[in-house]
Amino acid sequence: MKRSPSPTRIFLPAGFKFSADVAGLKASGQPDLAFVEAAGCTTAAALFTKNRVIAAPLQVGRKHLRQSRGRVRAVIVNSGNANCATGSEGLLACRRICEKVADLLGARAEQVFPSSTGIIGVPLPVQKIILKLPELVATSATEQAVHQFARAIMTTDTRPKLASTRLSFGNCSVNLLGIAKGSGMIHPQLATMLVYLFTDLTARPIELRRLLKAVCDETFNCISVDGDTSTNDTVLLLASGQSGICLRDARVQTTVRHALLELCQSLAQQTVSDGEGVQHVIRLCIEEASNGGEARTIARAIATSLLVKTAWAGADPNWGRILAAIGASGVTVDPSRIHIFIGDQAVCRRGLASGYDQRRAHAEMSNPSYEIRVQLGRGSASASYLTADLTAEYVRINADYST
Amino acid sequence: MKRSPSPTRIFLPAGFKFSADVAGLKASGQPDLAFVEAAGCTTAAALFTKNRVIAAPLQVGRKHLRQSRGRVRAVIVNSGNANCATGSEGLLACRRICEKVADLLGARAEQVFPSSTGIIGVPLPVQKIILKLPELVATSATEQAVHQFARAIMTTDTRPKLASTRLSFGNCSVNLLGIAKGSGMIHPQLATMLVYLFTDLTARPIELRRLLKAVCDETFNCISVDGDTSTNDTVLLLASGQSGICLRDARVQTTVRHALLELCQSLAQQTVSDGEGVQHVIRLCIEEASNGGEARTIARAIATSLLVKTAWAGADPNWGRILAAIGASGVTVDPSRIHIFIGDQAVCRRGLASGYDQRRAHAEMSNPSYEIRVQLGRGSASASYLTADLTAEYVRINADYST
Repeated sequence: MKRSPSPTRIFLPAGFKFSADVAGLKASGQPDLAFVEAAGCTTAAALFTKNRVIAAPLQVGRKHLRQSRGRVRAVIVNSGNANCATGSEGLLACRRICEKVADLLGARAEQVFPSSTGIIGVPLPVQKIILKLPELVATSATEQAVHQFARAIMTTDTRPKLASTRLSFGNCSVNLLGIAKGSGMIHPQLATMLVYLFTDLTARPIELRRLLKAVCDETFNCISVDGDTSTNDTVLLLASGQSGICLRDARVQTTVRHALLELCQSLAQQTVSDGEGVQHVIRLCIEEASNGGEARTIARAIATSLLVKTAWAGADPNWGRILAAIGASGVTVDPSRIHIFIGDQAVCRRGLASGYDQRRAHAEMSNPSYEIRVQLGRGSASASYLTADLTAEYVRINADYST
Repeated sequence: MKRSPSPTRIFLPAGFKFSADVAGLKASGQPDLAFVEAAGCTTAAALFTKNRVIAAPLQVGRKHLRQSRGRVRAVIVNSGNANCATGSEGLLACRRICEKVADLLGARAEQVFPSSTGIIGVPLPVQKIILKLPELVATSATEQAVHQFARAIMTTDTRPKLASTRLSFGNCSVNLLGIAKGSGMIHPQLATMLVYLFTDLTARPIELRRLLKAVCDETFNCISVDGDTSTNDTVLLLASGQSGICLRDARVQTTVRHALLELCQSLAQQTVSDGEGVQHVIRLCIEEASNGGEARTIARAIATSLLVKTAWAGADPNWGRILAAIGASGVTVDPSRIHIFIGDQAVCRRGLASGYDQRRAHAEMSNPSYEIRVQLGRGSASASYLTADLTAEYVRINADYST
């Protein structure tokens, strides 16, 4: 049984067809429309941003899933415009697109799941999108179409993000495919990230939801590039049922959960390492916390400290900034019990410099990815967080996004 | 009665003498020792960082104030080394310096108030400092000495920060002088900021403490450059009693409180505008909140959003990012009640684009300082926050601080 998700090889789940096109929403003229047609009976579950400002497609998508009782026949995504803070006009635009797609497929509007990503507060050029829909619904179940889909949902991403795996159960196999976008506004919960997960399992929406929640908590909810939470974040899991294998089966469930976790970890890692201006990906391991919440609070405090993130950009083993960020986290830590490791070297023991090899620490931090471990000496809970450095390039990218 | 604090003119409170010197703690060879001698009977109150990692001088200073019952005869400050995360050695070093100063002045060690600012986790070169103390205690009550003091406490600051004012009560006058440092790690509470406030009022320590707390809550606790809270922040208020005017007097109290507030506002403004890499200072006014805490939470969410701060760097009126930051603040706002103003122009009304003049907004945001106002439509509480943009220069400054 193949288990580790492959970023290059695509195992296409049966029952899904893909397409992409150019509607002219991006100044660059790059593809900005992406589409999936799903087999009848395809079930779905989705998770959305926790931001209080919620884009129109998320409001419509949530309602559609409720109305259709978790049945999805198509996914329509546009990049280049978030359709957020666009009021009733934005909702209307989104609904019109879903209705038009439904017409073209002979489905119901509530079976169409919409997503948007891009600039906030600018009316969606709905007519440009609608004009392209007749071409867009001409989908195909090819690797090429999958790659085109992955490219069309990109905004400031520099590369498409894909992961795929195949699981064997006796003579049958189940395919898993994940496609993601996101490179700025990456922070729990699910910040400007769109993730589409496809499988040919048979599953009820409630089973999919439970699976998705568990996997997201350990992957997409444990990454942070810039601490900003988007208005459009969505993770959608679709199951076509075409493999004949049921998620209900306990053995299947365990295997699938593990495989989906690995697949989402790969997508999370790809997302952070493609973070805007990112040069170093850091896995933060917070150990010996009193409880998981406390460990995550401290991970978040470190992952969002500008002084820590800029030190990482310079591969500077300035552990004092990490210690200061821990101290400012609000958790009542005792500094004299804290150890900090960069790679396998302790740089701080009991809150003090450990007389470490600075050159070795600098060399470790020059790697594209490495680990920083913090031991709090408070208990036995831990948390792991994927984050990145903050570079001048990030500032350049974001200082003139809308202009 | 002169009221607005003058950044250039110094009104020297009677009873204080200043000096500065070079001990060699900074690689640049710039002055790194600063000293104040205070007249006998000088009373004091201090506020310290809320970070759980607390530098040695803060632990010693807090203890000294308690032991001396708020009496201070000298302040000794070093820049270039924070004496933080230096353990019992660091405490010992700090105590030795205080004892030596006390010896030289014929005072008690507990009457000496120490401060340090600079890199964390590096042992304080205590011998270098002690060697310089005999010269350092040769103080003088001159404007020049005050300016030298202000320069010697600087780290990455590009300019000294001073404010001063004189208040007249009949034939008598009271002088107020404030000296501050800080340009990175600026965030409530009192992040890597050292502030020394001097007056020739007569006041009991408890009266000074009450005054200082009230003034700090409205000034130094309402600024944020990079969201990082330092381990060394200290605000010290000293009253020599040499003017003969008593703070106890109700009329004096009202006048002094107002004047000290203005003076600290000036120092806060100087600190933010000298923030590392800062090109624009923004006053955030959060209005129509349910309560003050909620208003401050939203101010903080906006002031620490990297996407908002980088948009400010580009003078980009991307109000969608401000709205998204408000939505992610945790406050249960209703976006359709939110208005956002840049300068005097509404850019977002009821959570939607207001059809504003983009060029005018860009021009407003090109000013070195301007105001952004947010109306939440939830109540009548408000908060004001002073913050700044995030530039590529900030990253450059902080990516190789310790190397």
